[in-house]
Amino acid sequence: MAPLSSYVTGSWHVPDDEGEPLHDAATGEEVARISSAGVDFGAALAYGRRAGGPALRELTFHQRAALLKSLASHLREHREELYALSLRTGATPGDSRFDVDGGIGVLFSYSGKGKRELPNDTVCLDGGLEPLGKGGTFAAQHLHTSLRGVAVQINAFNFPVWGPLEKLAPAFLAGVPSLVKPAGQTAYVTAKLVELIIGSGLLPEGSLQLVCGSAGDLFEHLTEQDLVAFTGSASTARKLRTHPVVAARSVRFNAEADSLNCSVLGPDAVPGTPEFDLYVRQLVTEMTVKAGQKCTAIRRAFVPAAQIGAVAEAAAALLADVTVGNPADPAVRMGPLASLGQREEVRRALKALIPAGSVVYGDPERVEVVGADAERGAFVSPLLLRVDDPGQAEPHEVEAFGPVSVLMPYGSAEEAVELAARGQGSLVGSVVTADPAFAREVVLGAAPWHGRLLVLDAACAGESTGHGSPLPVLVHGGPGRAGGGEELGGVRGVLRHMNRTAVQASPQMLTAITGRWVPGSARTVTEVHPFRKHLEELRVGDTVVAGPRKIDLADIDHFAAFTGDTFYAHMDEEAARANPFFDGRVAHGYLIVSLAAGLFVDPAPGPVLANYGMENLRFLTPVYPGDELTVTLTAKQVDPREGTAYGEVRWDTDVTKQDGSSVAKYDLLTLVARRDG
Amino acid sequence: MAPLSSYVTGSWHVPDDEGEPLHDAATGEEVARISSAGVDFGAALAYGRRAGGPALRELTFHQRAALLKSLASHLREHREELYALSLRTGATPGDSRFDVDGGIGVLFSYSGKGKRELPNDTVCLDGGLEPLGKGGTFAAQHLHTSLRGVAVQINAFNFPVWGPLEKLAPAFLAGVPSLVKPAGQTAYVTAKLVELIIGSGLLPEGSLQLVCGSAGDLFEHLTEQDLVAFTGSASTARKLRTHPVVAARSVRFNAEADSLNCSVLGPDAVPGTPEFDLYVRQLVTEMTVKAGQKCTAIRRAFVPAAQIGAVAEAAAALLADVTVGNPADPAVRMGPLASLGQREEVRRALKALIPAGSVVYGDPERVEVVGADAERGAFVSPLLLRVDDPGQAEPHEVEAFGPVSVLMPYGSAEEAVELAARGQGSLVGSVVTADPAFAREVVLGAAPWHGRLLVLDAACAGESTGHGSPLPVLVHGGPGRAGGGEELGGVRGVLRHMNRTAVQASPQMLTAITGRWVPGSARTVTEVHPFRKHLEELRVGDTVVAGPRKIDLADIDHFAAFTGDTFYAHMDEEAARANPFFDGRVAHGYLIVSLAAGLFVDPAPGPVLANYGMENLRFLTPVYPGDELTVTLTAKQVDPREGTAYGEVRWDTDVTKQDGSSVAKYDLLTLVARRDG
Repeated sequence: MAPLSSYVTGSWHVPDDEGEPLHDAATGEEVARISSAGVDFGAALAYGRRAGGPALRELTFHQRAALLKSLASHLREHREELYALSLRTGATPGDSRFDVDGGIGVLFSYSGKGKRELPNDTVCLDGGLEPLGKGGTFAAQHLHTSLRGVAVQINAFNFPVWGPLEKLAPAFLAGVPSLVKPAGQTAYVTAKLVELIIGSGLLPEGSLQLVCGSAGDLFEHLTEQDLVAFTGSASTARKLRTHPVVAARSVRFNAEADSLNCSVLGPDAVPGTPEFDLYVRQLVTEMTVKAGQKCTAIRRAFVPAAQIGAVAEAAAALLADVTVGNPADPAVRMGPLASLGQREEVRRALKALIPAGSVVYGDPERVEVVGADAERGAFVSPLLLRVDDPGQAEPHEVEAFGPVSVLMPYGSAEEAVELAARGQGSLVGSVVTADPAFAREVVLGAAPWHGRLLVLDAACAGESTGHGSPLPVLVHGGPGRAGGGEELGGVRGVLRHMNRTAVQASPQMLTAITGRWVPGSARTVTEVHPFRKHLEELRVGDTVVAGPRKIDLADIDHFAAFTGDTFYAHMDEEAARANPFFDGRVAHGYLIVSLAAGLFVDPAPGPVLANYGMENLRFLTPVYPGDELTVTLTAKQVDPREGTAYGEVRWDTDVTKQDGSSVAKYDLLTLVARRDG
Repeated sequence: MAPLSSYVTGSWHVPDDEGEPLHDAATGEEVARISSAGVDFGAALAYGRRAGGPALRELTFHQRAALLKSLASHLREHREELYALSLRTGATPGDSRFDVDGGIGVLFSYSGKGKRELPNDTVCLDGGLEPLGKGGTFAAQHLHTSLRGVAVQINAFNFPVWGPLEKLAPAFLAGVPSLVKPAGQTAYVTAKLVELIIGSGLLPEGSLQLVCGSAGDLFEHLTEQDLVAFTGSASTARKLRTHPVVAARSVRFNAEADSLNCSVLGPDAVPGTPEFDLYVRQLVTEMTVKAGQKCTAIRRAFVPAAQIGAVAEAAAALLADVTVGNPADPAVRMGPLASLGQREEVRRALKALIPAGSVVYGDPERVEVVGADAERGAFVSPLLLRVDDPGQAEPHEVEAFGPVSVLMPYGSAEEAVELAARGQGSLVGSVVTADPAFAREVVLGAAPWHGRLLVLDAACAGESTGHGSPLPVLVHGGPGRAGGGEELGGVRGVLRHMNRTAVQASPQMLTAITGRWVPGSARTVTEVHPFRKHLEELRVGDTVVAGPRKIDLADIDHFAAFTGDTFYAHMDEEAARANPFFDGRVAHGYLIVSLAAGLFVDPAPGPVLANYGMENLRFLTPVYPGDELTVTLTAKQVDPREGTAYGEVRWDTDVTKQDGSSVAKYDLLTLVARRDG
């Protein structure tokens, strides 16, 4: 059997040797061979930086988002090919959907987030303008630029499709090329995935490379512009994190390691409540999906001491219905572990765990299987343990990376938090309760040790995605034992691939650098009203100044009568004076913004299509009868929308009165047509 | 001389041995002795977690901010004591103000940021609500909670006051206790600072500890909830970062190391322009302030090849005016290095640097000094070198941590970016130019390698804080050689001491957990109108539903005539129909929000004091003549302001029409009085 090829420096590289065999998890047959012999790692990284990076950085966030969407659709069309290979890893069809459809879902999600939450630009601002001097001539703006290196992505064996895609999507959107290194056991699925991606021709060449086999001297070639995103065991994470080159060049290193996640049953959730059933069902699901080979699986199940027997009994009953066997067999609910090696590791962990308690369900040495040979395939039985003294060390420290969980009792909410923390940092925890006070205490108490916390109750159960599912819009990671890293989280995951820089300059320079108009820089009062300009013609800084418009008491009375807004500050001189902020009757805030619009609009049909909203409105100085309003409207940001006939234009709006003081400031949001739309 | 005491586990610890001597930088006299012998590091960390953490976490962000302000005022009253000691470190009075007043400024800045940009709460939300199901029963909110450990802060010798305070302020605001370890050479200044702080009695006991002397086995006791913030040499950073406990427990480790920062002269800034003079003056300032012992100093000065001679000449002329000597002498502009050891290091670096080019100004072996003995004090001459081949390695790699800079020529903007990047990551860079296009190219090109970039020109020079000054509101740090970390940056620096968790739950549960009303959770239509409730009586979820109010064509005409807003979409049936978003004339957005206010206000004088603004207004569905509006106003967030008689109340506002669809959504911002205000 020919070993898997790697895709590096623009072509498929056939290994220089015959490689090591990879085996079908259920049958033990050889599925593929693997080796990275002959891969030039330094050249691959250099190629990513030289070819992939520049190609990606020529695209805006929105253009990259559109490519991710096309890629997601392409992979969806080809997902059957991935399902078929996935069976060989021991995954049931249900497990495969979790992996394959989940991975495609990450691409769709990032595509949407990129389009909605990032600008149609290559640079992304961070936070607001920081004025640095009273005179307004010096200010700062934080911004994010794409790192100029390669995102080295080292994935775990358990999600050969989701794993690479959840790392690729944010890197790609950030304009950073990826080099993917799958774990050996299931690398043939990832290789197929990359073959489909490269074959699609959708991504710029150099934006994705693949190395099947060992990482060789890859780390020796890292620079301060590269990143490493690692998913796998805590011990490997430790080794890579302290690699001399990573340490010397401060290479960004993100680790996601499996952790001893817990699930807490609330004291209100006694047998007979929907939450009791939800708890038990979720526990059994987390034990058996992917045969428990999920870094997010529930390893520690904390239940009120009074319920431990009832939970054990209910869980055992559900576990008895879980048919174990060849995932190709439709009757099978749980497949084998990924390899015989994994089974050895699980059995070793059980040797430390089992003496700490008693076995509620399962046999560590034997399991009945359907459609396969129990010993040639990497089968194990689901195993639920019970430890009555939660003060023991093993259940909080020893992880069996398989269908294994430990039931433990707790007393108070405070104790539940303490026990959760004994995991020393987890990816996820869950609390199953209908009691908001209990949920609040456990969530806020346990949050410092968790990347994600789920509160499950009857109200959300129908839509809940469950304890074990990381979601692309939420951060995935956790402190301490969970690796101390963070992946995903929508745009947060994109920014992790960019460098944040504080840029200090005059407002005029900041406008030139960021492409957004910064208050304090020049306003260009154009001959043509800016509302008469199409998107392509508008320049940031284009300004209209309109007014003055005097406000008198009659206007206030009239507006109050018309709108019904007779709030005392507008209508009652004495009450208004008694208010700490006013010296008498004041104009309505909405009267001010309404009159401002009356001043600045150019009414005739033209390229301005709609006012779709407003941001950051602040009323700064009261407006009294007799005051005169002037409005200054300046184009602040012009953002074409990919694939539409218009774009978004944000206008800085400053309403001042006769003494020059600002009475209201806000950003007005409009849609403006393209000339060629 | 008795050695400096450490302040640990609630009391001053006198070292168990006599310690090592510390010497006056200018005179060589013994100033103090230092040792950490007998400090129980494990107990100190445990005490911080047990006493300091809980005491801090009982306070809200606003209460912590108020304490920082009091502390800043207290230190300002005592700053003369710090100035006096600071002289012994070699700092001139000007240098001391940079250190002492700068440090106090950080406290004031964080106090202001905490009050303005964080809630009056102990938990801080991150980003918006993430809906996770179409039915609206499942959603997520990211939030930050205080880490439950200690922030171990290891400072460099060059800023014995600013260094500890810039690390303490964000940690304190985050609710995390600090353990400060100053560098030996200047620890007596930090010890005085901590003595002043502890003596003030302002901070909760346990929130600040001090260790003078070596760190002993401190790192052995770190846990996943502790943090390390290190400022110092790259080699020490590397050693600490790879400490087995740091690696095994994923301890958050932030490093800030001195880097080979550059300053680029724009091609427009020829002799005779203000920018030319600004460049040369800034270069000389950065070389000589703190005798160049600033991790942000300019080490590499890139100038257009044609100007290198002119820059060298102008800089040499200014350097000739810099009087070196005992900082106690008012004539002195530059003091000695911090110690004879530092001078040895600078001389060693110069041995590698000098052969690469020529000396423009200064003598590496000799310097004329005022008021001191040139050899007993750690004096060196300012030294400006010139290297005509910028392709050489040394100027980009070897740092002399003293008054030393290297002039180098460049050709294009692109080459300037490449040369900047050869520093392999810097804290700061500057570009001195009046040309916005040049500034944009260099800033966006160099940004991936920099934590901060300054564009200096005549427009901002009057207010510019200069190349070398980190500011509390801006991130301070940089990739690669600069340590790969980030400090300060306003609230960003606070959040680095907290853990981010994605909390998934039903809206009702999210409301209970966050204390903010989440859309989808219950609204309580109260008997009393919520505008009649004082701050203490308002509950999130309190709701008023008002309407319907029918809008007819006469309303639109009337509003248009009154405000002057005769935009075609409101007035011209045919043009409105031609618009891609409308089926005919639509009501003005501001008419909708004005009518909504008319519906929901309770007009009589009461606890609601003012509407001070609006956030996130979006018009979602057009309103046509004949439509009927209903508004639902719900108290979303109630934030008392410390020290005032009122607080901020944010209201979720949803304007719907007869078919139930939302036509506008926004957050209304009001000030509401306390009953006991």
